[in-house]
Amino acid sequence: MTNDILLFPSRKHSISFRVSSIFSSLSEEEDRAWSQRCHVRCLRAGETLVDHADESTDLFLLQSGEVRAVLRFGVGKEAIVGVFRRHEVMGELSAIDEMPRAASLTAVNDSVVTVIPSAVFHEIIALKPQVNKAVLQLLSLRMRQLNDRVSELSFLDTKHRLYNTLLRLSRIRMDGGGERVISPPIVHSELAEHIGSSRETVSREMARLMREALVERTSRAIILKDPGELSSRISRALQN
Amino acid sequence: MTNDILLFPSRKHSISFRVSSIFSSLSEEEDRAWSQRCHVRCLRAGETLVDHADESTDLFLLQSGEVRAVLRFGVGKEAIVGVFRRHEVMGELSAIDEMPRAASLTAVNDSVVTVIPSAVFHEIIALKPQVNKAVLQLLSLRMRQLNDRVSELSFLDTKHRLYNTLLRLSRIRMDGGGERVISPPIVHSELAEHIGSSRETVSREMARLMREALVERTSRAIILKDPGELSSRISRALQN
Repeated sequence: MTNDILLFPSRKHSISFRVSSIFSSLSEEEDRAWSQRCHVRCLRAGETLVDHADESTDLFLLQSGEVRAVLRFGVGKEAIVGVFRRHEVMGELSAIDEMPRAASLTAVNDSVVTVIPSAVFHEIIALKPQVNKAVLQLLSLRMRQLNDRVSELSFLDTKHRLYNTLLRLSRIRMDGGGERVISPPIVHSELAEHIGSSRETVSREMARLMREALVERTSRAIILKDPGELSSRISRALQN
Repeated sequence: MTNDILLFPSRKHSISFRVSSIFSSLSEEEDRAWSQRCHVRCLRAGETLVDHADESTDLFLLQSGEVRAVLRFGVGKEAIVGVFRRHEVMGELSAIDEMPRAASLTAVNDSVVTVIPSAVFHEIIALKPQVNKAVLQLLSLRMRQLNDRVSELSFLDTKHRLYNTLLRLSRIRMDGGGERVISPPIVHSELAEHIGSSRETVSREMARLMREALVERTSRAIILKDPGELSSRISRALQN
């Protein structure tokens, strides 16, 4: 039992690994046995799970909410390098190599996280080849995403980095019309942190996109009216 | 037998995995058995081993020479994301996830590479836990390096990115004086590709560093006379 669980005493959180695709190959019994060695931590919006350079080595499985991985230097210098949602794992680098945390992990909304001690993680990897394979593939995917980020930062100007980020953060709208949405809507200062620019620049570019009817903003979402056009502008910028 | 080996018919290349730290836990016997399923490929300076988006899935072990991983878009848009030297492995992403190559791999000098079919790689990982662990740690290290690259591109201006790249590409000089060297010396257009800038900008900054006696250039090397000063300038830029 940990104190963490007492933060939200009215809610009960059962732990299961198998909700995550990484661990979906575990049997019900294995799931139960390993879960007993983990605990749950509840985070309020804005609360930090780990800080850059912390020496903890737990792996985390996000049960609900949203968490961000942020690189941070000095005052106000932040770059968001990952956004994690329900059933995704986080913090795997330090769990694997036992080096200090590469980025901080901060809850965007109230979030519930399963804390998996690295000893448990390594035991599962050693005993379950399918989990091991899934972890290797996850790391490959993450590296591809980081390579894309390096390309974006190396080759694209602010405007096209913004298009790219809008596409990356959005999900397809389930009405068959081909639009994409970011919901809840992200504020301009956060978009600026995604692309390494200022809030003013983002506001100016967003205003332009709205004039062009490529983006619409409601109280509940940012709607990308023509994602295909944004994509082809990015492709053209990369080829030129 | 492959044709590749015939490119340099006068040289004989024996294959061994154990030269690489990733595979150092293999026994002599295992090394021999798995090596028989690999072949050697010889590359001339400038020759490309794989291209971005290629669908091959081999893993590579660099026996000698130097190879670069490059992200490339359109005409002249290149970002160097990795430099590999003797006994390092390359190409692990596609070997793991069987997706197209994320970057091209190009020989800087004449190089000799062991080509390890992904089936052999997966067999070794499945049977040898220590190799598996080493691969996981390698991927973690690579991700940390890519995170650093994202920080560099997000937070540092051209001048400090140049300092960072000079430090990254250099090795400590073995005379105890604390200097670092890049040998053979890298040309300014290549430095520009490392930092996402122009040759002209690099030349201007290098001239300034030489006036400040922080860098010296000979026909055989670029010498960093005071690496500590370059490091503290970068730290100050990150904190400000």
